[in-house]
Amino acid sequence: MEPSSYRIEHDFLGEKKIPNNVYYGVQTLRARENFNITGITQASEPLFIEAFAYVKKAAAMANCDCGVLNPKIAGTIIHACDRIIEGEFHDQFVTDLIQGGAGTSINMNANEVIANIGLEYLGHQKGQYEFLHPNNHVNCSQSTNDTYPTAVMMALHFKVKVYLQALQELRASFLRKSDEFKTVLKMGRTQLQDAVPMTLGQEFHAWATTIGDDIKHLGEAQEKLTEINMGATAIGTSINTPKGYPELVTKYLAQLTGLPMTLAPDLIEATSDMGAYLLISGMLKRSAIKISKICNDLRLLASGPRAGLNEIRLPPMQPGSSIMPGKVNPVIPEVVNQAAFYVMGADVTISAAAEAGQLQLNVMEPVMVFSLFNSMNYMINAIFALRTKCIDGITANVEVCREEVMRSIGIVTALNPILGYETAASVAKEALATGKAIHDIVVEERKLITQEKWDEIYTFENMVHPEYIKA
Amino acid sequence: MEPSSYRIEHDFLGEKKIPNNVYYGVQTLRARENFNITGITQASEPLFIEAFAYVKKAAAMANCDCGVLNPKIAGTIIHACDRIIEGEFHDQFVTDLIQGGAGTSINMNANEVIANIGLEYLGHQKGQYEFLHPNNHVNCSQSTNDTYPTAVMMALHFKVKVYLQALQELRASFLRKSDEFKTVLKMGRTQLQDAVPMTLGQEFHAWATTIGDDIKHLGEAQEKLTEINMGATAIGTSINTPKGYPELVTKYLAQLTGLPMTLAPDLIEATSDMGAYLLISGMLKRSAIKISKICNDLRLLASGPRAGLNEIRLPPMQPGSSIMPGKVNPVIPEVVNQAAFYVMGADVTISAAAEAGQLQLNVMEPVMVFSLFNSMNYMINAIFALRTKCIDGITANVEVCREEVMRSIGIVTALNPILGYETAASVAKEALATGKAIHDIVVEERKLITQEKWDEIYTFENMVHPEYIKA
Amino acid sequence: MEPSSYRIEHDFLGEKKIPNNVYYGVQTLRARENFNITGITQASEPLFIEAFAYVKKAAAMANCDCGVLNPKIAGTIIHACDRIIEGEFHDQFVTDLIQGGAGTSINMNANEVIANIGLEYLGHQKGQYEFLHPNNHVNCSQSTNDTYPTAVMMALHFKVKVYLQALQELRASFLRKSDEFKTVLKMGRTQLQDAVPMTLGQEFHAWATTIGDDIKHLGEAQEKLTEINMGATAIGTSINTPKGYPELVTKYLAQLTGLPMTLAPDLIEATSDMGAYLLISGMLKRSAIKISKICNDLRLLASGPRAGLNEIRLPPMQPGSSIMPGKVNPVIPEVVNQAAFYVMGADVTISAAAEAGQLQLNVMEPVMVFSLFNSMNYMINAIFALRTKCIDGITANVEVCREEVMRSIGIVTALNPILGYETAASVAKEALATGKAIHDIVVEERKLITQEKWDEIYTFENMVHPEYIKA
Amino acid sequence: MEPSSYRIEHDFLGEKKIPNNVYYGVQTLRARENFNITGITQASEPLFIEAFAYVKKAAAMANCDCGVLNPKIAGTIIHACDRIIEGEFHDQFVTDLIQGGAGTSINMNANEVIANIGLEYLGHQKGQYEFLHPNNHVNCSQSTNDTYPTAVMMALHFKVKVYLQALQELRASFLRKSDEFKTVLKMGRTQLQDAVPMTLGQEFHAWATTIGDDIKHLGEAQEKLTEINMGATAIGTSINTPKGYPELVTKYLAQLTGLPMTLAPDLIEATSDMGAYLLISGMLKRSAIKISKICNDLRLLASGPRAGLNEIRLPPMQPGSSIMPGKVNPVIPEVVNQAAFYVMGADVTISAAAEAGQLQLNVMEPVMVFSLFNSMNYMINAIFALRTKCIDGITANVEVCREEVMRSIGIVTALNPILGYETAASVAKEALATGKAIHDIVVEERKLITQEKWDEIYTFENMVHPEYIKA
Repeated sequence: MEPSSYRIEHDFLGEKKIPNNVYYGVQTLRARENFNITGITQASEPLFIEAFAYVKKAAAMANCDCGVLNPKIAGTIIHACDRIIEGEFHDQFVTDLIQGGAGTSINMNANEVIANIGLEYLGHQKGQYEFLHPNNHVNCSQSTNDTYPTAVMMALHFKVKVYLQALQELRASFLRKSDEFKTVLKMGRTQLQDAVPMTLGQEFHAWATTIGDDIKHLGEAQEKLTEINMGATAIGTSINTPKGYPELVTKYLAQLTGLPMTLAPDLIEATSDMGAYLLISGMLKRSAIKISKICNDLRLLASGPRAGLNEIRLPPMQPGSSIMPGKVNPVIPEVVNQAAFYVMGADVTISAAAEAGQLQLNVMEPVMVFSLFNSMNYMINAIFALRTKCIDGITANVEVCREEVMRSIGIVTALNPILGYETAASVAKEALATGKAIHDIVVEERKLITQEKWDEIYTFENMVHPEYIKA
Repeated sequence: MEPSSYRIEHDFLGEKKIPNNVYYGVQTLRARENFNITGITQASEPLFIEAFAYVKKAAAMANCDCGVLNPKIAGTIIHACDRIIEGEFHDQFVTDLIQGGAGTSINMNANEVIANIGLEYLGHQKGQYEFLHPNNHVNCSQSTNDTYPTAVMMALHFKVKVYLQALQELRASFLRKSDEFKTVLKMGRTQLQDAVPMTLGQEFHAWATTIGDDIKHLGEAQEKLTEINMGATAIGTSINTPKGYPELVTKYLAQLTGLPMTLAPDLIEATSDMGAYLLISGMLKRSAIKISKICNDLRLLASGPRAGLNEIRLPPMQPGSSIMPGKVNPVIPEVVNQAAFYVMGADVTISAAAEAGQLQLNVMEPVMVFSLFNSMNYMINAIFALRTKCIDGITANVEVCREEVMRSIGIVTALNPILGYETAASVAKEALATGKAIHDIVVEERKLITQEKWDEIYTFENMVHPEYIKA
Repeated sequence: MEPSSYRIEHDFLGEKKIPNNVYYGVQTLRARENFNITGITQASEPLFIEAFAYVKKAAAMANCDCGVLNPKIAGTIIHACDRIIEGEFHDQFVTDLIQGGAGTSINMNANEVIANIGLEYLGHQKGQYEFLHPNNHVNCSQSTNDTYPTAVMMALHFKVKVYLQALQELRASFLRKSDEFKTVLKMGRTQLQDAVPMTLGQEFHAWATTIGDDIKHLGEAQEKLTEINMGATAIGTSINTPKGYPELVTKYLAQLTGLPMTLAPDLIEATSDMGAYLLISGMLKRSAIKISKICNDLRLLASGPRAGLNEIRLPPMQPGSSIMPGKVNPVIPEVVNQAAFYVMGADVTISAAAEAGQLQLNVMEPVMVFSLFNSMNYMINAIFALRTKCIDGITANVEVCREEVMRSIGIVTALNPILGYETAASVAKEALATGKAIHDIVVEERKLITQEKWDEIYTFENMVHPEYIKA
Repeated sequence: MEPSSYRIEHDFLGEKKIPNNVYYGVQTLRARENFNITGITQASEPLFIEAFAYVKKAAAMANCDCGVLNPKIAGTIIHACDRIIEGEFHDQFVTDLIQGGAGTSINMNANEVIANIGLEYLGHQKGQYEFLHPNNHVNCSQSTNDTYPTAVMMALHFKVKVYLQALQELRASFLRKSDEFKTVLKMGRTQLQDAVPMTLGQEFHAWATTIGDDIKHLGEAQEKLTEINMGATAIGTSINTPKGYPELVTKYLAQLTGLPMTLAPDLIEATSDMGAYLLISGMLKRSAIKISKICNDLRLLASGPRAGLNEIRLPPMQPGSSIMPGKVNPVIPEVVNQAAFYVMGADVTISAAAEAGQLQLNVMEPVMVFSLFNSMNYMINAIFALRTKCIDGITANVEVCREEVMRSIGIVTALNPILGYETAASVAKEALATGKAIHDIVVEERKLITQEKWDEIYTFENMVHPEYIKA
C-alpha cells in the first residue's frame, strides 16, 4: 500500500496498516484475516447491523445520563448510529458471521466503524481514537457479552416479524382456496389408503389452521426475545457500569425500537443462556416441518397427471425435464421441502452449539446466529414462493375427485351404525376382491339397505359433515 | 395349545387361537406377531394405559348420554376402565410401542381388553363379543385417529407434570446451594479464559434461574396438550358420531382428569397435526441441553483434584477406576449428559417422523410417542440422580477459589474506568509475560493507583456487585 | 436383610451389604444405585456379555503367559469366562447400559461376577477376594479404558454380522420378486410425475442393488471394529502391563473369536477415539435411510386401493382400522420407517456424544453403545418383518400397471429422436389439455408417424430396454 | 427493456424476454424467478461448473462417435465446454443452489449457456437455437437425471481432494509438534480427573493419528464418487441413447478428468440412489467431530492463564475482549468448533433429504449438494486456519506440565503391582484428604517402598512408556 493510502492502527498485539477509505479498524482487520469461513458477512444482514446501531445508540444515551460520557461524545456516537440505522456504512460490517471470540469481532467492528464515522463528523481523521475511542467511548459500560446477544435478540425479533407476516399471508391464501374448494368432494386418506370422504376445502382449511397455530406459537416465542442483558458487561456482574445504567439502557432501547424490552432478572444467567435461541429455533423447525408436510401433500395430490392421484393442478412454473417433453414438475413445493430440511439441520447445529457453552459465556453463539438467520431467510423466501407461485394458482380436478369417492370402498364406513362393523367389513372385503362398487353390493346384491336409505346417507352434506345414521 | 386352553377369535383376515387366560384378542395377537421391534410394550407406561382407560370411559359416558350405547353396556365399559385406571390388567397391554398402523393396534388392544373384562363381569366368557364388542361398543363413536392421539396427549400431560416436579426440586437445590456459597469468591471465565470475579453462589443461582425458565416454558407447552380431537373419528369429519358427542366426551374427559381439556377447533387439522409433539419435544430438548451444559460446568469446576480447576467437590459415588486407585469420577453429571444426548437425538427422530406424515393422518406417531416417553423417563431419572446424588452434596474448595482470583490478571478490568482500556491492557500484558500479580504492577511498580484506592476497589462486595469506580 | 442372607463387601468409599445369592459385588451394587436411567441393562445384550467374557479370558491367558498371574488363578478366570460365554450368569450383568464412569461399572460388574464364580469354583465363599480379586486378578493388566471399548467393538462386530445376514436375505427376496415381476410393464415416475415406462421387476431389482451396496459398505466398516486397544490400560501408555502383553492378548482374542483382531498402532489415540462408532453409526444410518425410502415407495405403490396408485398389493397383516371396515394398511413398511427414524436420531445422539469426549477418554461411550445396539436391534427386527411379512408376499396389479403406461403422456419421450423435443412437447401439451392419448394425436390426428412405426417403437422390449430410434 | 437490448425465447410455457448480453436462456430465467432461496448460485462453486462442462463435453464426444451428433455440432459444444473449463462464463451460472426440479434448472442453465457460446462461435446470434439447440444437441442422449448427479459426483471428488490435502497438512503439523513436545511430561486425564502421566508429544501424536485415520476413510469414500450413471437418461432405462453410448461417455469422462470413472451396474438404482452423498456426508461429519474434539481439548489445555490448566499457549490472534484488557481467547479453535457444528447439522439435512426421495428420482438432491459443498468449504477454511493460525504456533508451558505430574495423586497407579490396588487406594485416599504428596506418604510416612525403588519407578522414560514393575 502507498503510505498515503493507509493509516496505522495498533492494539496490544501490535500494529496493522488500515486502508484509509475503510471505517473499520485494526481489530476488524484481524477478524477478517482470522475468520474466512463462510464468506457471508454481517453486511448481508441489514437488520443485524441496524440492531447493533440501536444498541450502541441506547448505550450512549444512558452513559450520557449517567455522566460517564460527556454530551459531545455521546451525541457524536448517536449521530453515527443514526446514519447506520438509515442504511449508511453497511458495507463496513465485514466480519464473517461465523467467528471465534463469541462476537467480540462483531462488536469491535461496530465500535470501530462508529468511532471513525464520529471522528470524521468531529473533523478528525479516522484512527485518531484519542478523540473518540472504540473501547473507552463507543463501548463504554458495555461488553461483547451484553451488546452482542442483545443486538442478536433484536435482529431476530425484527426478522421473526417478517417471518410471521409471510405466514399470515400464506394462511390467508389457504383460507381463500379453502373457500374456493368447499364443494369439491374427494377421498380422505389415512396411511395412503382410501379412508372416508371429505372436501378439498376442508383439506386446505386444515392447512390454514395449522399455519395459524404456528403464528400463535412463534409470536409467543418472539416475546422471549425482548428479555435482554444490557449492563451485564463481562460475565453478568455489571462490572464497569455506572449505577442505574442497565435499567436506563434497556428503557432507551425500548423507546428507540418500540419493542417491550425488559432487563433479565439474573444477568449472570442471561449472559450465558442460550434459551432464547433454542426456543426460536425450535419454533422455526416446527413451522418448517409443518410446511414441509403440506408440500409433501401438495406433491402427492398433484401427482400424475395420468398415473397419479391428480386431484389438483399446481400452476406450471417451468418445463420439468430436459428430456421428457411436456413434463411439468411441482418445483415450488420441492424447493420449500428443501428449505425445511435446511432448518431441521440448522436446529441440530444450534443444539450442539448451545450444549457446548461453558461456564459464564457461550462462545458458540455466532454459528447459532448464522443458522437462525439462514433458517429464517430461506423459509421466508420459500414461503413467499409457495404462496405466490403455487397456492394462489392451484385448481381442482373436480371430476377426478368426485369419481374416486363414488368408486371407493371407504364409503362403507358410513354404514357401520346400521350394519355393524363386521358386516360392513365383509362388504368391503367382497368389494376389494371383486372390484364391485359398495352401492351394488349393499343395495342390489345383498339388499342390506334400500336405495332410498342409500340416497339419504350419501348426500354431499352428509359425507362432509356426517350426521349420525340410525338403522 | 390344548383345546381347553384357548378360544378362537376371528377378524376379517381369518381366525386365530387366543390363550384363554389373556384379555386381549385377535387383533392384539396379530400386532404382537407383526411388531417385534423394541421389545418395549405399552405395559411399561402405566400413565399411557391409564390415559387410554380415561378415554374409553369418557366415550362410554358420552355414548350413553347420546343414546348410542345402552346404560348396561356403557356401565360395563366404565367398570372395566375403572379397574384399569386402578392398576389392574396392565400386563395385558402387550403392543410394542413402535408399531405400524398409526396406533390401531394400541387402540384395539384397549378395546379388546376392556371388552373381555366387561364380558367376564357380565358373566360371559372372554371372546363372546356378541354381548360386548370391541369395535361396536367399546370403540363406539371412536376411531384410532382420535382415541390414540388423545390418550397420548393426556399421558404426556401426566408425565410432563412429573418432569416439572423434578425440575422444581432441582431448582430448589440450586437455590439452597446458591445461598450456601454466596460468600465464596471465585473467577468467572469466558471462553475458558479467566475473566472477572464472581461468587460461586452467583453461579449456582444462574443455574436455578435457567431451570426456572424451563419450568415456565415447559409449563406453557404442557397447556397445548389439553387440546384434543375426540369425536374426530376417521379423518376429522366426525363420521359415525352422534350429534353433540365430541363436546360431551371432551367435557367428561375434563371432569375425570381434572385437566382443562378442550376440543380442537378444526378436527381435520387436529387429526393429522403433530404440532403438540413437536412443541413438547422442542421444550424437552431445550431443557436437556441446558441441564447438560450445567453438568459440563460441574465436571469442569470439579476437575482435578490437583491438575484441574478443583473449585468444587462432588460427592463421591463410586470408585472411579478399575486400575487407578483413589480416582473418583463425576459419574452423575456424566450420566446426565448422556441422557441429554439421547433427547437431542430423539428430537431428530420426532422431527423426521412428523415431517413424514401424509394427508389426513400421521402414521409415524408411535415412534414419536416412544421417543417422547423415553426422553422424559430418562431425563426424570437423570434429574433425580443429579439432585440427590450430586448437587445436594457439593462442597466448595473455598481457598482454591479465592486464591485464583487474587492471582488472576482479569481483576485489572475493574481499573478500566481509572486507567483506560489501553493502559490496563499494557498492565495485563506485563503480568502475563512476567508472572507478576496485577497488584504489584499497578500499585508498587508503576504506582498507577495507591494502596488505599486498591483496597477500596478490591473489596469482596465490589468484586461481586461492582460499583462504578471513578478515578 | 437377614444376617445370613448377605455378605459385607467394601471398597474405598466404605461397606455395603450384598445379597448372598448374587455374583456381582459392591461396585456393581453402587452402579445399580447410581444409574437408574433406562432400565435396560447389559443383560439384555448377550453378545455384549459374551464379548466381555472373551476379553477377560484372553487377558487371563496373556497374563499367565507373561507370568503376572499364576496358572491356577488364570485357569479359574478362564473357567468362569467359559461358563459366561456358554450363557450362564447373564442375569448377573445388571448395570444400566447408560452409565457414568465411561464403562467402569460394566467392567467391574464383569470383574466381580467372574471373581465370585471363580471363588465358588475354588471352594471359597463369594466375596473372599483375597483368593481371587476383581481388580488385582480378573482385571490384571487391564483398565476399563481398554476392556470396555474392546468388548464393545467385538459385540458390535457380532451384531453387524446379524445385521448383514438380515440385509442379505432381504436382498435375495428383492431379487426373487424382481424376477417374478420382470414382465410387468409400469410407469416410472420422477418427482411424483409420470415419466417413462419401466418394469416392476426393474424397480425391485434397483432395491436389491441398493441393499447390496449397503452390504458392501457395512461389511467394510465392520472391519474397522477389529482394531482394538487391549493393553492400553489407563490412557494408552500401557501402564501396569507386562512386556509383550498387548500383542499377546490381541492374539488370543483373535484365536478365541476367529476374528482378525489387530492392535491399534497408537494406543493413546485408540483409547479416546470414537471413530469406529461414528463409522458404524454412519453406515447404519445410511442403510436405514435407504430402506426407509424403499418403504416409502412400497406405501406409495400400494396406495389406494381405488383412489391411489394401486400398482402392487402388500400382504394384509391385520385389520387396518377400528372404524373403517375392510381397510388394510401397509403396517409393516410403516413400522420399518419408524425404526429408521430412530436410527437417524440415534446417529445425532452418537455424534453429540462423540464430540463431547475430552482429553484422554470419551466418557460418553455408554450412550453411544446403547444407541448402536438399539439401532441394530430395531433395524434387524424391522428388516426381518419387512422381508417375511411384506416383500415375500407382494403381488402385482398387472393390468393397472399396464393401463397407466398406455394412457400416459410420458411415452412421448421415446419420440424425441424422431420429432425433436419441441414438437414432442407440443404433442404432450395437447394431450394434457384434451385428455387424448399420445397415440391418437401422433398417429391419427397429426400423422407424425405411421402405425407401423408406432408398433415398432412401443414394444415391451423397447420400452424397458429402449433402443435408440431413428426417424 | 429496450427492444434492442433483449431477445425473445420461448419454451412450452410461453415466451420470455432475455437480455442480449446473457448467455443463459428462457429456462434459466424462469429458474431465477422461481428460486430465490439462498442467494448462493452455482457461480460460487467453480468446481461444479467445471464438472458440468466435462460432462457436456464427454457427452458430445460420445454422441459424435455414436453418430447422433454431427462433428461440427459436437465440436462446437466441445469448444464451448473447454472455455468454461478454463474459467470463462462462470458468471452465467446463475441458478440458486437450492432449487426445485431435481437439478433440471442447473442442467438447462448449462445447456443454454453452452448453446449460446456455441452459436456465437458459429457466427449466429444467441437464441438461434435452430442451429444449436440446448435440448436436442447440447443435452443429446442426456437427462438431468444423469448429468446432474454425475457432475455433482465429480465436483465432490474434486473438492474432497482439496479437503484431503488440508487434512494431510494438518496431520503433518501435529506430527511436527508431537516431535517438538516429546519430552514434555504432563498429566493425562480421563473424565477431567487426573489420571496417569504422559507426554504432550504423545497427545499431539494421537491427534495426528486420528487425522490420518480420517484421511484413509475419506479417501476410500471418495472412490465411491467415481461410479456414475451417464446414459441412464430419464429414469435409468437409457431411453433415447444410442447403443454403446453409456460406456463411451463414461470412458471419455475418465480420460478428460484422469479419474477412474465407472458406469454403475444398475442404472435405475443409480439414478435415485443417494448412497454416495450419504457416505461422503457421514465421513465429513466424522472428520468434523474428531477435529472439533481436538479443538475442545486445545481450549481446555490452554485454559487460564492463571485459573485454568495452562499447559499450552495458543498464538494470540486478536484482543479477546472489548472490556477485559489483556484477555486473549482461543478464537481459532472456537471457530473450528462452529464449522464442525454446521457439518453435524448439514448431515441431518442431507439425511432428511435422502430419506424423502420417492420412486425413480430423489428430487431433494439440490439441498444435499448445497450442504455438502458448504460443509467442505467451511471445514477446509477452518482446517487451514487451525493449522496456520493455531497449531503451528503452539508452545508448551513445560514447568506447569511437569509440576502437575509430581504433585498428582494419579502417579500412585504405577505402584499397583507392588502394593496391590487396595493399599494403593488407601494411599490415594490419604493424599486426597491431607493434601500430602504420594511420595511423602509412600516413602517417608508409611515406608512402603524405598527411595531407591521410587527413583527407579518414577523416571521420565518409565512414566511415558511404563515398564511393568515388580515388587
